[in-house]
Amino acid sequence: MSKKYKGFEPKWVKEPPPPGTYRSIFKWGDPNEYKIPNERLYKMMKEKFNMTDDDFKQPKKLGLEKVSFNKPINLTQEQINTFKNIVGPENVKTDDYSRLQVAYGKTMIDLMRLREGIVENIPDIVLYPRDKNDIQKIVEYCNQEKIPVYVYGGGSSVTRGVECVKGGVSLDMRVHFNKVIEFNEINQTITVEAGMSGPELERILNNAPSIFGAKRAYTCGHFPQSFEYSVVGGWVVTRGAGQNSTYFGKIEDIVISQEYVTPIGIIKSDEFPAAATGPSIDQIMMGSEGAFGVLTHVTLKIFRYMPENQRRFSYIFKTWEDARNAAREIMQGQFGYPSVFRLSDPEETDVMLKLYGVEGTILDKIMTLKGYKKMERCLFLGFTDGEKGFTKNLKRKLHKVCKKYGALYLTGYPTKEWEKGRFKDPYMRDIMQDFGIMTDTLECSVTWDNMEKVHEGVRKFCKSRPNTICMTHMSHVYPQGANLYFIFIAKMDSIEEYLEYQYGILDSIQKYGASMSHHHGIGKMIAPWLEGQIGRNQLEVFKALKRYFDPNNIMNPGGTLALDLDDDKKRFNYLKD
Amino acid sequence: MSKKYKGFEPKWVKEPPPPGTYRSIFKWGDPNEYKIPNERLYKMMKEKFNMTDDDFKQPKKLGLEKVSFNKPINLTQEQINTFKNIVGPENVKTDDYSRLQVAYGKTMIDLMRLREGIVENIPDIVLYPRDKNDIQKIVEYCNQEKIPVYVYGGGSSVTRGVECVKGGVSLDMRVHFNKVIEFNEINQTITVEAGMSGPELERILNNAPSIFGAKRAYTCGHFPQSFEYSVVGGWVVTRGAGQNSTYFGKIEDIVISQEYVTPIGIIKSDEFPAAATGPSIDQIMMGSEGAFGVLTHVTLKIFRYMPENQRRFSYIFKTWEDARNAAREIMQGQFGYPSVFRLSDPEETDVMLKLYGVEGTILDKIMTLKGYKKMERCLFLGFTDGEKGFTKNLKRKLHKVCKKYGALYLTGYPTKEWEKGRFKDPYMRDIMQDFGIMTDTLECSVTWDNMEKVHEGVRKFCKSRPNTICMTHMSHVYPQGANLYFIFIAKMDSIEEYLEYQYGILDSIQKYGASMSHHHGIGKMIAPWLEGQIGRNQLEVFKALKRYFDPNNIMNPGGTLALDLDDDKKRFNYLKD
Repeated sequence: MSKKYKGFEPKWVKEPPPPGTYRSIFKWGDPNEYKIPNERLYKMMKEKFNMTDDDFKQPKKLGLEKVSFNKPINLTQEQINTFKNIVGPENVKTDDYSRLQVAYGKTMIDLMRLREGIVENIPDIVLYPRDKNDIQKIVEYCNQEKIPVYVYGGGSSVTRGVECVKGGVSLDMRVHFNKVIEFNEINQTITVEAGMSGPELERILNNAPSIFGAKRAYTCGHFPQSFEYSVVGGWVVTRGAGQNSTYFGKIEDIVISQEYVTPIGIIKSDEFPAAATGPSIDQIMMGSEGAFGVLTHVTLKIFRYMPENQRRFSYIFKTWEDARNAAREIMQGQFGYPSVFRLSDPEETDVMLKLYGVEGTILDKIMTLKGYKKMERCLFLGFTDGEKGFTKNLKRKLHKVCKKYGALYLTGYPTKEWEKGRFKDPYMRDIMQDFGIMTDTLECSVTWDNMEKVHEGVRKFCKSRPNTICMTHMSHVYPQGANLYFIFIAKMDSIEEYLEYQYGILDSIQKYGASMSHHHGIGKMIAPWLEGQIGRNQLEVFKALKRYFDPNNIMNPGGTLALDLDDDKKRFNYLKD
Repeated sequence: MSKKYKGFEPKWVKEPPPPGTYRSIFKWGDPNEYKIPNERLYKMMKEKFNMTDDDFKQPKKLGLEKVSFNKPINLTQEQINTFKNIVGPENVKTDDYSRLQVAYGKTMIDLMRLREGIVENIPDIVLYPRDKNDIQKIVEYCNQEKIPVYVYGGGSSVTRGVECVKGGVSLDMRVHFNKVIEFNEINQTITVEAGMSGPELERILNNAPSIFGAKRAYTCGHFPQSFEYSVVGGWVVTRGAGQNSTYFGKIEDIVISQEYVTPIGIIKSDEFPAAATGPSIDQIMMGSEGAFGVLTHVTLKIFRYMPENQRRFSYIFKTWEDARNAAREIMQGQFGYPSVFRLSDPEETDVMLKLYGVEGTILDKIMTLKGYKKMERCLFLGFTDGEKGFTKNLKRKLHKVCKKYGALYLTGYPTKEWEKGRFKDPYMRDIMQDFGIMTDTLECSVTWDNMEKVHEGVRKFCKSRPNTICMTHMSHVYPQGANLYFIFIAKMDSIEEYLEYQYGILDSIQKYGASMSHHHGIGKMIAPWLEGQIGRNQLEVFKALKRYFDPNNIMNPGGTLALDLDDDKKRFNYLKD
């Protein structure tokens, strides 16, 4: 997975987590896979966090205990039997492990709780629906009995999106509810069940000629960092974005129709390329995060699979300001948009150059000599997608803008390095946390004219904590602005300290005028900040919709989208309930 | 305005309508402007409609009578005084002409009624709000007094959108509420009041360097056929599309934020390039057609004004099938989209070749000889927008696809001809109707795989009426489908016959599976078909929103979006109420 260390190598936990343990639940991705920081990063962490090799000799809080707890199942035997009748007894689980497995996502507080063996907010029962019919019966019955319904897709939520705050039922969609319903090459669409996983969808589309007898291969165009362990349904209900969204669009641009099972019945949107028939049902349901109903089917636009036309690029700018101006000019130039568009601020650039092995090389020296100075310079990388002539013209025009702003072309190499890690970096999170090093992210959306205020303001708060790394990049870029993505790394293992820090960052994002999320969603974690952004009248719009779809508040209750947050509990922490 | 006739020329009414007459209200556009059909078209009409020169000697139902009617004002003097206090007495009108002037749009039934002197569904009072403050006070007071509120923008609705079915107040936004609030070159946005007219907005943007000291000139990118006589607010609340929408997007793609005054208060959406913060408020408000509140401000994305990069093209295809396949392949090719994209079916092609003077020329003979036969061949025209290299590549790739499907390149000439008429053709509607010839349009949205069924089905109904022209084109095109736009021309002057025919077309659009509108909106005219398209559960979503925003049903009441249609009145005709 990485080059050998020359000096001391921490006792990284590379072994797959033993089955049945807390670790097997919280560890990211494939149990057998891992990624360790390289030696340069390790050195940096020691410096930044005032740690020594000694601190990396004994990993802690590994969650190697077997999952076991004493939490009553708040359902009657009759209710349990009804569920067994609906989905079949083999698709009903009430054991501790199955319940905990779907209770949380990958929010930092989830990992922290599981490492501590703190078990709370778990479902009473886990169901594995086989088809829409099962889901309809479950929702109908739960509505009648007022049993909360949660939905578990890939489990990669970082906003406490799937957390079963009020107990009840969790529907695990991965097991059975993951099939292709229709592939339509004429319309260039595919209809899938909500539990369809990212890689499976992409495999199917890439192999459309052999699987469907299609004329060509396709791609879904949606590749979030969680791609390998997220599902289509999760992308849609949270309004996710893939790393290639600058070209392909966010999921709300890719979805053409959807079907939901709600307590008041089926909501199925029309499959039209556009319409002027009242408010957009699709845009009402996307972003509902399970609070209006269960997403069952999604029809997605698909794209031609043409990796041969991808053109990689990377540049180094002298300053963040030059880089931002170039980014804006590229997006406003009307020559098309790059697919991956990632521009790192000075601190992230510093870390990335370490990660990619550029630091200390001859290239580093050349950059420094030419005035691209450490902790001032900014790395911009990405690649294009689309038809050949289109990508060729785009790369040429983008190059012109970068040159205008004094950038140095660095070839496609850094992009290739980034691609290697794009789905693998999350593996480092657990392995570092074994030594008390917390890695977390928050992200927002902001217009160009307010970007520096947000960047500076949020960074200022992040860095007010000593010995803390705060890396920022701009990605998912638009003519009117971009996503700003903050990654913070710190030695921190108290849940209370973590939450206080996180609240401070969320406060800063709001204070400086960015949206509370560009693509992670709101969930239960960011919900207390939602009203501060959108205002009381608009939050009441969501509540009016909620009352219509889910009058008994059984769908993802307990804070989702601030729909049932008490006024006096704006920042409540379920942990302390 | 057009070449001299060689033979008999009808007594076209070219004079501006006398002030104060019904004609001055229903006539399209500039009173002094007109457009007459050329001699080829005139000849065609005579043939098609079994008419002779004699039928064109005496124009009828010209609406030259002075507007005068006896309709009581259902407001108390106190209420009228309150309105005078709010907007100033000079901004309150209760005379017959002012009331009728804002009661209707340009729906065919509006024209027919006005020609007959039928006056119904008019407001009690007309107000000219000066600013948002006025509008807030008006809505608050009307909500308290339960007085209906209608909004009049450009008055170009073709769906009975502005019709004051329940009397009350009509707010005429054109007079004062039409200013620029902010021009933001960094974000490439402009914020305007809802009554801002299309040409004024475009003039301002084209002259941004001199007006705002901007670095360059901009364009709004939104040019509906009604452009010269429509306003930004109307574009937005109806989900309109400009003729260049294939490149620039529909208005819902161009809007970045909005502000509404509703009975429950202000609804202001955030100006973020994208977000994952619950359902989209923008997409809830767009398409609300005045039924949730009064749109006051809109922030629009703007685009670089680069007419020098526009590249015109036109092709003739042998068959509608070849043409459709080419259109689809162009839109799915991922080399960018043309700006204007207009593909005519055989009957429309026939009319257009007459209109553009191609019929009977040497070019016509060449086409016929090469197998592009009359009433089979299809004309495709348009132009590109964007950066120079982008448009160059796009035109080249588009050409390749057209050639693949056997098309003959016809140069940019037909496009230029189309451009001449793009905003002027509506002038022909009135001048033809003076001889009882009705021209009307209906349009829908449909996926590629269902397009031929809709085209055939709707045409079959249209043509089941003898002596009727039905022209269809595809415009506003997407990778997944397109808008189909039907223009029907017939000798018809009974309102009852007209409505029966229109209902039949709307039935056919629904029966064959298209959306009820792509960009005209629903209004009160298409409302009875809305539930048939979106279903009961989704119509109830709109009603839930309505209850929240407008609990007393004062905003555009009387059928808008089927929000207050009785179940037993699915097709009711206000005329017969």
